[in-house]
Amino acid sequence: MSKQLNQKLLEPKLSVSTEAPNLCDSLAEYQQKHQDYIAQNLSLDLTRGKPCKEQLELSNDMLNAVTIDQLTETTDLRNYGGANGIPEAKELFGEFLDIPETERLSNVFVGGNSSLSLMHAFVSFALYQGIQSEDQPWSLEAAEKNDSIKMLCPVPGYDRHFGVCTHLGIEMIPVKLTGDGPDIDQIKALVNSDPLIKGIWCVPRFSNPTGETYSNEVVEQLASIPSIAGKNFYILWDNAYALHALNSNAKTLNSIDSCAKKAGTSHAVIQFGSTSKITFAGAGLGYMASSAENIAGFTKHFGMTSIGPDKINQLRHVNFLKSKENTLQHMQAHAEIIGPKFELANNILRESFSETNLCEWQKPDGGYFISVNTHPGLATRVIALAAEAGVKLTPAGSTYPEFNDPDDKNIRIAPTFPSETDLKTAMEVFTNCIFLASAEQKA
Amino acid sequence: MSKQLNQKLLEPKLSVSTEAPNLCDSLAEYQQKHQDYIAQNLSLDLTRGKPCKEQLELSNDMLNAVTIDQLTETTDLRNYGGANGIPEAKELFGEFLDIPETERLSNVFVGGNSSLSLMHAFVSFALYQGIQSEDQPWSLEAAEKNDSIKMLCPVPGYDRHFGVCTHLGIEMIPVKLTGDGPDIDQIKALVNSDPLIKGIWCVPRFSNPTGETYSNEVVEQLASIPSIAGKNFYILWDNAYALHALNSNAKTLNSIDSCAKKAGTSHAVIQFGSTSKITFAGAGLGYMASSAENIAGFTKHFGMTSIGPDKINQLRHVNFLKSKENTLQHMQAHAEIIGPKFELANNILRESFSETNLCEWQKPDGGYFISVNTHPGLATRVIALAAEAGVKLTPAGSTYPEFNDPDDKNIRIAPTFPSETDLKTAMEVFTNCIFLASAEQKA
Repeated sequence: MSKQLNQKLLEPKLSVSTEAPNLCDSLAEYQQKHQDYIAQNLSLDLTRGKPCKEQLELSNDMLNAVTIDQLTETTDLRNYGGANGIPEAKELFGEFLDIPETERLSNVFVGGNSSLSLMHAFVSFALYQGIQSEDQPWSLEAAEKNDSIKMLCPVPGYDRHFGVCTHLGIEMIPVKLTGDGPDIDQIKALVNSDPLIKGIWCVPRFSNPTGETYSNEVVEQLASIPSIAGKNFYILWDNAYALHALNSNAKTLNSIDSCAKKAGTSHAVIQFGSTSKITFAGAGLGYMASSAENIAGFTKHFGMTSIGPDKINQLRHVNFLKSKENTLQHMQAHAEIIGPKFELANNILRESFSETNLCEWQKPDGGYFISVNTHPGLATRVIALAAEAGVKLTPAGSTYPEFNDPDDKNIRIAPTFPSETDLKTAMEVFTNCIFLASAEQKA
Repeated sequence: MSKQLNQKLLEPKLSVSTEAPNLCDSLAEYQQKHQDYIAQNLSLDLTRGKPCKEQLELSNDMLNAVTIDQLTETTDLRNYGGANGIPEAKELFGEFLDIPETERLSNVFVGGNSSLSLMHAFVSFALYQGIQSEDQPWSLEAAEKNDSIKMLCPVPGYDRHFGVCTHLGIEMIPVKLTGDGPDIDQIKALVNSDPLIKGIWCVPRFSNPTGETYSNEVVEQLASIPSIAGKNFYILWDNAYALHALNSNAKTLNSIDSCAKKAGTSHAVIQFGSTSKITFAGAGLGYMASSAENIAGFTKHFGMTSIGPDKINQLRHVNFLKSKENTLQHMQAHAEIIGPKFELANNILRESFSETNLCEWQKPDGGYFISVNTHPGLATRVIALAAEAGVKLTPAGSTYPEFNDPDDKNIRIAPTFPSETDLKTAMEVFTNCIFLASAEQKA
């Protein structure tokens, strides 16, 4: 298994010549292979972290998981009402997010089919209205200081988090990921230097795309950051892959809720999650948890934007998933489908590159991605070459704020959606593109 | 049938003494009756325009209206994707909104379960980002002019439209409703006087709460308003009750799409609709239509806030509703359930007040409300009295921006949700409250 070498890549000793002496000699060979792939008119896609057909089929029974009788047992779930979710759904997803039983009805919000909507809404409310009625909106504070609001973004990270900031005009400050989560010293220095830094995006388990899980210490230290940050600073804890381990060796994640309680920062931690990669990607549920006061404030704002969530789909999920324990068994079935794809992709990378230093990656223990770092300056070229050969990769820079990967080296591979046959072909094209681009650079 | 007399109420000739000479003499009687109601410990609710159980049951078959095979026929509707709705849903709801067949795929957006979400999002995008990429955001224009953005609000109107403006800090300017729609001369004078008036909220058919349908001429004249208004002015056309006639005498609505095409203002008309009062109130679909360019711009923004709509619920609706023609038959069944409730409420009002001038109302031919105007200064008191007697009414002022009914006279009655028995009791309590408050005022 490869070890993550993000940091090492920054060191100057890494050069093509040391370990791939024949790279230039082989240029023509790589070019020929590339032309052969082009001639095949492939159309393959490794861009998005989408579940495959077989995964979706695991949840087919959800389609008929509610009856009219169940919908009308207490309040009529077909009608309006229930701004922050049905109690049964708050119980279930509160359990997913490690919220103590007694706090689930007050501290959990269950929404519609997209946790991204909850994240965008939360950031937008914090920016323009203030989450709780006494909170000063970030935008007012920024206007007073004649400066802009900033958000910390561990990199490489999730493009849609960055998209929320771009859409709302929030400046992004990249923070280094260490393999154990973001660099806490860097974060401390940054929040100390600027009270307009108002939050940090985190994908704490099987981080998108690096696959790393934040260490217990990092989670603990992160939970204390709001105490030294400016007012209304939030840790946006997108625990998208909370239950998405690929094997039993996967590291568990420290509970941010517990750590925040110890640190006295519960008001500053907003957890998000969704069932998009548990049930149906497009027809799942997004949910969030925070202090009762934040959830009440958020619910009030959200109520201005919506008649309330689809409660039928919430009960459908509760009936189908039942409990965290049952859901973990369901996730085991997901792992059995996508685990071999990660193995396959990793094996092809290993066979191609283990004897070279042309690229680095980590085989993740969960999540949806493999993060590949080429030599600096090559990601754009590799992605363009792959496109030429009919293999679509996430655009260069996507894993960095404003698409700006300063080293132009990070490529995010999503192996779950294609069939194993397609994945194999796509990975072979991809590895040849890395060889070819590396040889071109050296030539 | 009573005639709407909104305007007449403003005239000074209306006074209690002219037609209810015994009002003061009867004060004690009204008080006694009120005490009797209080003693009954009633708990009745006439606040929200909610469908009743029997209406919801009309759509029970929707719950099982899709099969897995149908979901996977072309693109997999269980998965991510399809930012602005599935083609079949655009076809159906495009038909609802009178969009020509050839334009439905490009000019219609079908979202999640709340058209309010689409409205809030649209106004928010216009305010902060600009709908199309070249549009200046309203907020920038307002900052340049050191003034605020304003929206025209025909009154009495829909509280949730006003809520969107309040939430986003948009100033609201009330515009008189005439019984045939908003006063066009007033609108012309207003938009001529201030380029920061950026839109108008309209519920053009069975307007909430007055029940009036905009006349053909008013629709035509409204469609020409964007030509004389400031840039990026939008007609927010919330056709919530497009298919919601209670009888065959109901006036039809001129097509704003056709009128806008003639006037060259298609870029400024945004139509909204939802199935909340067609299928399941909480698990329906919201949709919108505008120019292809606006829908493309809106879709791009919306894509920053969401992974896309629940496509399974979209196909469920398409399979269940089938066509506009079939849906109109389904709406006939709704009318058979709620029509008698409107009759009942109207009869009680008529029996109580037709010989007096204590209040005025219009029996609507569709929609969800009866709008009652008391004598000026009495709405708050009537609503408080009703609450005392266990009948919940929409808070005073709700039908006006910022809850400011300048005459304190408008009360919105929602007769659809309660049973006929409960409705009868609630209306009797209500009418006595009007008598009582009127007598108190006169005393």
